[in-house]
Amino acid sequence: MTLLVDPTYLKDFTQAVFEKMGCPADEAETAADCLNRADLRGVDSHGVARLGGYIRLWEKKRLNASPTMKIVHETPSTAVLDGDLGLGLVTAPKAMKIAIEKARQAGTGWVAVKNSNHYGIAAFHSMMALEEDMIGISMTNASPLVAPTFSKSRFLGTNPISVTFPAKNEPPLVIDMATTTVANGKLEVLQRQGKDAPPGWAQDKNGHETTDAFVLKNGGAMLPLGGDRLHGGHKGYCLGAMVDIFTAVLSGANYGPWVPPFVAFLDPPENPVGDGIGHFLGAMRIDAFRPADEFKEHMDNWIQTFRKAENINPENKILIPGDPERELTIKRQKEGVPLSEPVIEDLKRIAEQFKLTFNPVQYA
Amino acid sequence: MTLLVDPTYLKDFTQAVFEKMGCPADEAETAADCLNRADLRGVDSHGVARLGGYIRLWEKKRLNASPTMKIVHETPSTAVLDGDLGLGLVTAPKAMKIAIEKARQAGTGWVAVKNSNHYGIAAFHSMMALEEDMIGISMTNASPLVAPTFSKSRFLGTNPISVTFPAKNEPPLVIDMATTTVANGKLEVLQRQGKDAPPGWAQDKNGHETTDAFVLKNGGAMLPLGGDRLHGGHKGYCLGAMVDIFTAVLSGANYGPWVPPFVAFLDPPENPVGDGIGHFLGAMRIDAFRPADEFKEHMDNWIQTFRKAENINPENKILIPGDPERELTIKRQKEGVPLSEPVIEDLKRIAEQFKLTFNPVQYA
Repeated sequence: MTLLVDPTYLKDFTQAVFEKMGCPADEAETAADCLNRADLRGVDSHGVARLGGYIRLWEKKRLNASPTMKIVHETPSTAVLDGDLGLGLVTAPKAMKIAIEKARQAGTGWVAVKNSNHYGIAAFHSMMALEEDMIGISMTNASPLVAPTFSKSRFLGTNPISVTFPAKNEPPLVIDMATTTVANGKLEVLQRQGKDAPPGWAQDKNGHETTDAFVLKNGGAMLPLGGDRLHGGHKGYCLGAMVDIFTAVLSGANYGPWVPPFVAFLDPPENPVGDGIGHFLGAMRIDAFRPADEFKEHMDNWIQTFRKAENINPENKILIPGDPERELTIKRQKEGVPLSEPVIEDLKRIAEQFKLTFNPVQYA
Repeated sequence: MTLLVDPTYLKDFTQAVFEKMGCPADEAETAADCLNRADLRGVDSHGVARLGGYIRLWEKKRLNASPTMKIVHETPSTAVLDGDLGLGLVTAPKAMKIAIEKARQAGTGWVAVKNSNHYGIAAFHSMMALEEDMIGISMTNASPLVAPTFSKSRFLGTNPISVTFPAKNEPPLVIDMATTTVANGKLEVLQRQGKDAPPGWAQDKNGHETTDAFVLKNGGAMLPLGGDRLHGGHKGYCLGAMVDIFTAVLSGANYGPWVPPFVAFLDPPENPVGDGIGHFLGAMRIDAFRPADEFKEHMDNWIQTFRKAENINPENKILIPGDPERELTIKRQKEGVPLSEPVIEDLKRIAEQFKLTFNPVQYA
C-alpha cells in the first residue's frame, strides 16, 4: 500500500533525524531539503527512502555529522574543499556557494570536493546557480557498479552530470543524468515489480547481456550510456571516466574501484588512493559572456523552438530537459509524496531509534 | 584503390591550398595541422577529405580566409571571441590560446566563440592544454542532423565533446566523442560499402527505426547517444542540447535548426538567431586544484588500473579513451594515410583550381 505524504512533514522529520545525528541545525535543514527535493522531483531512490543508508554509514563512523570543512587550496576561480567526511548533502552545497562567490569575482568558479559522502541528486546543487543568473554544474562519483567497455569489472559509479541553464519566461533547462543507460533506481523498481530489465541495461558476471533485474546482487554490472560498443557504450564509459577524474583525481578523493560503497554492510576497499568520495561543482556567470537578459531571451527561444519540434507520436510531446521533474514537483507538492509500505516501516524504525515520531497520514 | 600517402606531403599540400585561399601563412599551417591530425587519428571524415567542403563555403563567401578575430567581452576567467566568419580550424586554436592564458592567471579559462565555421576534430583544440599541465575542454555545434527524443525534426548537430587530461608516464587520456550513437562519418563508410546500418543508429523521416545507411539523404535523422528512450536516448539529447547552449546561446552564434549547414549547396536558414556557428573552449590549470605531479601520478594509476580490468573476451583488451587514435597515429605516421580514389581525384581537382600540384605516391 502506498501512502501520499505531506512533503513538508517529510522534510521536517528528515531534518529532525539529521539533528539527532549531531548535524548543526542549518546543515540538517540543507540535507533534509536535498532529500526532499529528490522526492518531489520523482527520484525516489535518492529521497527519504535513502535516509537509513546515511544513518548506517554514520553508525559505522564512515560519516561525520558535524564536519569541519576547509578549503585546502585555491586560486581566483578554483578551490578544493576537504569535506571532513561530512554528508555530501552538506559539503556539496557549501562547495557550490564557494563556486558562486568565485564566479562573482572571476567570471567562473570551480570547486572540487574530497573526503565527502553521497550527495543526493546532482541537480539540487547545480540549481543553486540559477537564481544568481549563472550556469550550474554538478558531478559526483559513486559506488563502483558499472563496467568499462569490454570489461566485467565494476570500476565506475553511475557518476551523474547535472548542468542547469537559466531562462527568462520559460522555466530553467535542467539536465541531471547518470552516465549509464539507466540509473540504479530503475532496476530497483523492476525488482519490486518482479519484472525483467530490457536488454541493454546490464550485463551478468561473465559480461554477457542479461535481463536479470537482480543482476547487481548476482555479480553483474550496469552498462555505460549507449550500452554495447556498437551503440556507443564506449562514449558512456568516457563520460563516467571524465566524472571520476574531475571529482576524485582532481580533488584527492578515491576513484575507480577504490570509491567507498554507499551501503554500510560493504567495507571500503583497503589501501585507499584518496579521501572519501569526490564531487565537482561549477558556476559560470552568464554576464561573463554576454548580457544575462540577452542570453535568457535566447534560452526562451531555444526552449520554445524545441517544444515545437515535430513529434513522432501525438501522445509523446517533445520534452525540454527538466520538464518531467518540474511537472512532478508541482503534482507532488499538491498531492503528496508517495511512500511505499517498506519505506514507511523503515522510517518508523528510524523514528524509534532517535526517539522521534513518524506518523504520516494520507495528504490532502 | 587506396593509396597510402605521406602525412607531411598531405599537410604541406593542405597548407598551400589554404594560403592560396588567402589565409595568412601561420593560420594556414594551423588549419592544415588540424586536418592532418584528423587523418592521422583515423577520423577520415574530418581530414583532408573535407578540404573541398571548406573551399566551397569560401567560394560562397560564407567563410572568411583572412578574418580579423576579436574579443568582444571578457572577465578574468572568460572571454567571447568573434571569429569574423573565419575557419573554425583557426578560430578555435586562437580561442584555446586565450583560455590557456586566462587559466595561467585565474586558474581556469573559458572562451565561447561565435561567427565561426566547422572546426575539424574537437580533440585538436583540447589537446593544446596538455603540454601546459592543464585539462582541455572543447565543444562545437554543427549542422542539424539529429532529432531530439520523440521528434522527427533535425534540430541538433552531432555536437562533439572533447576533454583531455594529462598523465605522467602514461599517455594523456583523450576523450573526443560525438553526442550521437555514432558520428556521421560511420554512416558514410557504410554507404561506400553498400551495407546497412545497425538498428539504433538512425530513424527515417517518419521517426521510425531504420537500417538505411542513406537515411540522412532520405529525410531521416541521426539518434542521440543512447538511441531510443528506453536505452537513454534522452540523455544523449541532453548532452547535445548542452553543447548547443554552451557553444551558441552563450556566445551569440546560431543554435538548433538555425546552425548554418557545412555543405555549401544548402543555404543557411533565413532569419539567423546569431552569427555563424559556435565553439566553447576551456583550460583548467591542474595546480589550481592540486600539485600537477601528484595529479599526474594518480592519472597513471587510474589508467594502469583500468587497463588491468578483467576483460570479457581475450581479444578485446580494455581501452583507455584516446588509445585507438594514438595507436593509429603511430601506424599512419609510419605507413602513411590511406586515401581512396575519389578523395585523390577531388584533391587533384583542388590542385588544378589553385594552380598547385598533387601527385601523391605510395608511402613506404
